[in-house]
Amino acid sequence: MTLREEALHMHRANKGKLESKSKVQVRNAKDLSLAYSPGVAEPCKEIYDKPETVYEYTMKGNMVAVVSDGTAVLGLGNIGPEAALPVMEGKAVLFKSFAGVDAFPICLNTTDVDKIVETVKLLEPTFGGVNLEDIAAPNCFYVEERLKKETNIPVFHDDQHGTAIVTVAGLVNALKLSGKKMNEIKVVANGAGAAGIAIIKLLYSYGVRDIIMCDTKGAIYEGRPQGMNEIKNEVAKYTNRENANGSLADVIKGADVFIGVSAAGALTAEMIGAMNQDPIIFAMANPTPEIMPEEAKAAGAMVVGTGRSDFPNQVNNVLAFPGIFRGALDVRATHINEKMKVAAVEAIANLVHQDELNADYVIPGPFDPRVAPAVAAAVAKAAMETGVARIKVDPEEVKEKTKQLAVIGKGE
Amino acid sequence: MTLREEALHMHRANKGKLESKSKVQVRNAKDLSLAYSPGVAEPCKEIYDKPETVYEYTMKGNMVAVVSDGTAVLGLGNIGPEAALPVMEGKAVLFKSFAGVDAFPICLNTTDVDKIVETVKLLEPTFGGVNLEDIAAPNCFYVEERLKKETNIPVFHDDQHGTAIVTVAGLVNALKLSGKKMNEIKVVANGAGAAGIAIIKLLYSYGVRDIIMCDTKGAIYEGRPQGMNEIKNEVAKYTNRENANGSLADVIKGADVFIGVSAAGALTAEMIGAMNQDPIIFAMANPTPEIMPEEAKAAGAMVVGTGRSDFPNQVNNVLAFPGIFRGALDVRATHINEKMKVAAVEAIANLVHQDELNADYVIPGPFDPRVAPAVAAAVAKAAMETGVARIKVDPEEVKEKTKQLAVIGKGE
Repeated sequence: MTLREEALHMHRANKGKLESKSKVQVRNAKDLSLAYSPGVAEPCKEIYDKPETVYEYTMKGNMVAVVSDGTAVLGLGNIGPEAALPVMEGKAVLFKSFAGVDAFPICLNTTDVDKIVETVKLLEPTFGGVNLEDIAAPNCFYVEERLKKETNIPVFHDDQHGTAIVTVAGLVNALKLSGKKMNEIKVVANGAGAAGIAIIKLLYSYGVRDIIMCDTKGAIYEGRPQGMNEIKNEVAKYTNRENANGSLADVIKGADVFIGVSAAGALTAEMIGAMNQDPIIFAMANPTPEIMPEEAKAAGAMVVGTGRSDFPNQVNNVLAFPGIFRGALDVRATHINEKMKVAAVEAIANLVHQDELNADYVIPGPFDPRVAPAVAAAVAKAAMETGVARIKVDPEEVKEKTKQLAVIGKGE
Repeated sequence: MTLREEALHMHRANKGKLESKSKVQVRNAKDLSLAYSPGVAEPCKEIYDKPETVYEYTMKGNMVAVVSDGTAVLGLGNIGPEAALPVMEGKAVLFKSFAGVDAFPICLNTTDVDKIVETVKLLEPTFGGVNLEDIAAPNCFYVEERLKKETNIPVFHDDQHGTAIVTVAGLVNALKLSGKKMNEIKVVANGAGAAGIAIIKLLYSYGVRDIIMCDTKGAIYEGRPQGMNEIKNEVAKYTNRENANGSLADVIKGADVFIGVSAAGALTAEMIGAMNQDPIIFAMANPTPEIMPEEAKAAGAMVVGTGRSDFPNQVNNVLAFPGIFRGALDVRATHINEKMKVAAVEAIANLVHQDELNADYVIPGPFDPRVAPAVAAAVAKAAMETGVARIKVDPEEVKEKTKQLAVIGKGE
């Protein structure tokens, strides 16, 4: 069977990938009296009296909504909420498999920012966190920003921050190989979508100050007459200090790092040749990278990362989101803040030990069972240190629990 | 331990009762490539091209939203969406345990009809059906009515129709004992909430024409000066033909059937004494019936049903909703119509065979494993016959499948 046939068969045979499961047995009148009427009234009354006990008596504290409007699904674009459902079910499966986080797809029949925000707010009682997924830019930014302000549960747009965290973790390690420092490097990012914007923001948090972002019209700079919007205007303010204009080929000259979240073929060997020595290339267009790794290497790239599993240094969000939510949920965090993201970056990067680090291994593999536990513990710790945790836990316990809950890396 | 302690312990030990579960394994790169990127793009593309295949490739076709605003939870009243969550999780557990229907709690942070309706409509891509639960009257009527019109998936307010279906099933059998016919009897219903209204509507569908409904102000009649609303005005139009006014004690004289969905103590022995011969009493106030069964029997009641598991003839919604949704989902019904409800009534009633039928056994027990399969098959058949089924199935196959999926009645 081809991959297509196999994927269709798997989805059809199981009628999707996700089901609800009871944690308790209901087989007789006694069971029924505890799980349902009249016994269920007792936790209801407790929660009514002490609202925070909803985290003790219900599924809320381990349940994440995977919310999408279906406007930017994989490389497929705006395919709508029904067609997006297989992806959201898949995401829920990954949450559970990698970190024991329960997750549920919420595919919404609207692309209106206000309606998406309103709906998620109305759903807040049910969920301990919200993972926004495959919502097109710029709406994704507005939805996330508003939900972060208007809810009291962690809201995380994985296409932005998951990608950013794993990319920056890879860059942290790649820079160890090149001996360069974050505050010295010049980064050129190509593609001003959700992931690109989040990556340069996180790089800025990391002290990178020489950043130029390009879109299909070339470098983004303040006052550019064409193709700007609110988000790009903001980008222009903290990037491109010298207001360079021109194409990617023009502005990439002398850069240390290329971040591609654009399209196949966007980066050429010539452009790499024009970069500073030991250039680092993250070519993450899917399914075909901006430049193929072998070509990039031949052109002088020191480290190449892609989104693909068949090349070294895969930038895979699954390294980030399961552990991030595991850690955030375990401390009942109200938000996922920059410090928690940085903690996740460091946790991922540090799993590649100095003696193993090499150009083909700057990022742990997606099935490395150490990742989610390490990320969860680091994120929980950072949440407690930054005051967004509602309860205190021992990060080592979070790590142990995550190890136990994850099914990846365990026997077939 | 007391029931309270045991119930709190059970909910706390499990952190609620519901979890998400993956139907597929994700333990290596191959698994990941099928369940998630890149393989998952294939079912996405199929659904985009042929929208109806969402029922084949996703969880939608087996997933019911259990929607509540927390305004009328059990006997606890308006306790809000968080405190309602244990009940909705419990409901989801029952859906799964009794008929293999996946269900997910949606506790909404609003009591506004328009917002509830809007939210459920926006969630429609994700769900194959909607079970409305514990929404106070009269909002529950408006929400259900609008959602039935404005969505294309089955919407069912269980507090109304589940209770009505099981009550009427009990009445069908009780009338066999008394030898009376539906179109001859006088029914007095006490309590004009969601369940009461639904019961008299379903009785009307069954040909009962002599119905008087009472609320706390006594009999409802056209033009009553006090305590009327849109719903009660409608009730007054098809009940109380002679525009009787007065208290329950006044209008119950000569009645054949009492339907109580009101409060403890509402029915007295004297009232039963004033009813027609062989009176049938459904005293379903929870947790304490309108009159206790022994007292009702002593006063001359032929058949007594309650909502309680510790008396004969328990009117328990679990006899209806799992099988109803099983049948509706299996034919991808667009709606749950009156014929499907009547089919459920008949299926439940017919499980009590003529030679077993007696005053203490007019309704099957809640753990009778024949019920959900029989209801599912009957509902699927009725859906196909009334043109609300999107696909055709063999009702016998629905019955077999339900038997296999249910866990109740199977070894401990």
